[in-house]
Amino acid sequence: MLNFTYHNPVKIVFGRGSIAQLPRLVPADAKILMIYGGGSIKRNGVYDQVIAALKRNPPAEFGGIEPNPRYETCLKAVEQVKAEGFDFLLGVGGGSSLDAAKFIAAASVYKGKNPWDMMTNWARVPADSLPVGCVLTLPATGSEMNGGAVVSREETKEKLFFNSPHSFPRFSILDPETTYTLPSRQTANGVVDAFIHTTEQYLTFPADAPLQDRQAEAILLTLIEEGPKVLAEPRNYDARANLMWCATQALNGLIGSGVPQDWATHAMGHELTALYGIDHAQSLAVVLPGMLRHQRERKRAKLLQYAERVWQLRDGNEEARVARAIERTEEFFRSLGVGTRLSDYDIPAEAVELVASRLEKRRMKLGEHQDLTENDVKEILTLRK
Amino acid sequence: MLNFTYHNPVKIVFGRGSIAQLPRLVPADAKILMIYGGGSIKRNGVYDQVIAALKRNPPAEFGGIEPNPRYETCLKAVEQVKAEGFDFLLGVGGGSSLDAAKFIAAASVYKGKNPWDMMTNWARVPADSLPVGCVLTLPATGSEMNGGAVVSREETKEKLFFNSPHSFPRFSILDPETTYTLPSRQTANGVVDAFIHTTEQYLTFPADAPLQDRQAEAILLTLIEEGPKVLAEPRNYDARANLMWCATQALNGLIGSGVPQDWATHAMGHELTALYGIDHAQSLAVVLPGMLRHQRERKRAKLLQYAERVWQLRDGNEEARVARAIERTEEFFRSLGVGTRLSDYDIPAEAVELVASRLEKRRMKLGEHQDLTENDVKEILTLRK
Repeated sequence: MLNFTYHNPVKIVFGRGSIAQLPRLVPADAKILMIYGGGSIKRNGVYDQVIAALKRNPPAEFGGIEPNPRYETCLKAVEQVKAEGFDFLLGVGGGSSLDAAKFIAAASVYKGKNPWDMMTNWARVPADSLPVGCVLTLPATGSEMNGGAVVSREETKEKLFFNSPHSFPRFSILDPETTYTLPSRQTANGVVDAFIHTTEQYLTFPADAPLQDRQAEAILLTLIEEGPKVLAEPRNYDARANLMWCATQALNGLIGSGVPQDWATHAMGHELTALYGIDHAQSLAVVLPGMLRHQRERKRAKLLQYAERVWQLRDGNEEARVARAIERTEEFFRSLGVGTRLSDYDIPAEAVELVASRLEKRRMKLGEHQDLTENDVKEILTLRK
Repeated sequence: MLNFTYHNPVKIVFGRGSIAQLPRLVPADAKILMIYGGGSIKRNGVYDQVIAALKRNPPAEFGGIEPNPRYETCLKAVEQVKAEGFDFLLGVGGGSSLDAAKFIAAASVYKGKNPWDMMTNWARVPADSLPVGCVLTLPATGSEMNGGAVVSREETKEKLFFNSPHSFPRFSILDPETTYTLPSRQTANGVVDAFIHTTEQYLTFPADAPLQDRQAEAILLTLIEEGPKVLAEPRNYDARANLMWCATQALNGLIGSGVPQDWATHAMGHELTALYGIDHAQSLAVVLPGMLRHQRERKRAKLLQYAERVWQLRDGNEEARVARAIERTEEFFRSLGVGTRLSDYDIPAEAVELVASRLEKRRMKLGEHQDLTENDVKEILTLRK
């Protein structure tokens, strides 16, 4: 096992009716700015629940956060925070609203001129932040229980990530009933997103960390069971609850403690989303099968374990079991309605070169061995045409 | 799934050499009192490592905490804290030293006359505590990552527990190398303790919480693999690390979130330890097989799942599989050298009546249905003669 530090101070309040606990969670004298997206929370009743819960201390509002939250939009919120002196941000919605709230909270105390510098150089993220609380309505990103935020910059078509121990939400409210009315595309995306957050921390190389392996497999097995159930029965409370808790556990730091991590699929996926606007989960579903096929020799030991424990594949030689496990993974994503090929999204062939050269320019060290080359990226994406 | 709140702000610093990180974890201007036990930390080098790490801010010392920390001893430490104005407690050792540090930290700010009242009425636990940091040297109790403490009162032969959100350690350092020299009895006790912490939150009734179930099974399966390995190879780093992380995960609130919990085995075990002085894990190993046999109808669904997933028992009828799973559990404890019968510890037959009547007097609601009777307790213990 590798050395690690694990610290996750987020208070999770989980279950039916838990939005009503907001007054106990937000400081009584807070001047609250509520950050949300495109209005789905007004249609599904979540907005009303939040306003009702906070009737003694009504929040001001900043709506219009995009599905991939834009830097330019966040900057407008930062201006509002500074101009009106808000001291508590409440993110309400999916990962985008939560990420935006976390970014705005950090940018509001950022001393430099250009808060985008926090994304390109994490050393510039301030050792402080406005406090953030969350009401999650879309299980997927894990943002409700980590200190990360992904923000996209329209001007440069960049989608980047920052992570800071100062950006953990103070609390996150997870009421599975708020997810009943999600479009099935968003539900399916959430399943895929949580699944691939898990594989990024699991499908690497063995580090003699059997508990973390089994905790990762626990999430994968549960997503495989509960994902189809949720799509078939959108108002099945327990299935919704299980999906929601899986998505949180997939990216709260626990399963990644003491083990190698990959994240190259995410790096490539972010470029695809930034360039072509496909959903985050769609981009991951496209890249992962290529990544696993291309890296199957280096990931062999874990892929064999994955084949056996997650897909119950015990017959055939090792190569066949690995190949079948990757096929089953892709079939699972497709069964949820999530396309797994660049062609499913009409992405042009030039994407292969473009993504590879953009990543090369970022000088990111990709993969669990931090050594994927520009050519590797091209080969991986070529497998996904 | 049941509604739940999960909040665990403990910072875990895990791995080889991590005691050297103490200066970054303790506030620079803290006036530190170090709480420890009987001197094993002086023999195994942990004391020297702590003193070396804190050479710029040397701690004062309070040694002599007993294996089941005594209230009377803790009160002496409270006097020292108040008299000399310590503002940071560093618990160094096993669960006893950590529990003592947490109890002393709460008792030091307790306003009432008799801090024992915190144990009998949790509403009296103050909404505050001196800050506590931990260096763990014995994986077992999970105290390093929860807000609980068990303390025994010599005068009345009571062993009671309190739990408070204000008593989480600020940090806990877990260096598996500090456990290399543990006597095998303590190592084995730790495996059993972590195992039964897990079963208390798992072997109840189904609550449609498949992720929590699998997270619990992950711990059990890993303990079954790693426990014997640690006993055979005391200096196997990864085995020691895996055992240490399992014990922490078994009682940090995660696997118990959203599911029913039992804890009757613990309640009965505490009485056996208080009355006859047997080790905590020994008391649990005695009670659990009786509890599972006696409650096998009510716990049937989870016992069948346990039989299949933890012990790979798929043959025979349901009753046989349940019976075999309980036998395998008891055999596992015995294989580690931990006795599972009252007679293994020369506990007299009167224990059956005595434990039952003491629990009856405490009016504790026992078991996941909170309805075990005095007679149930007698029947369970009678099975363990």
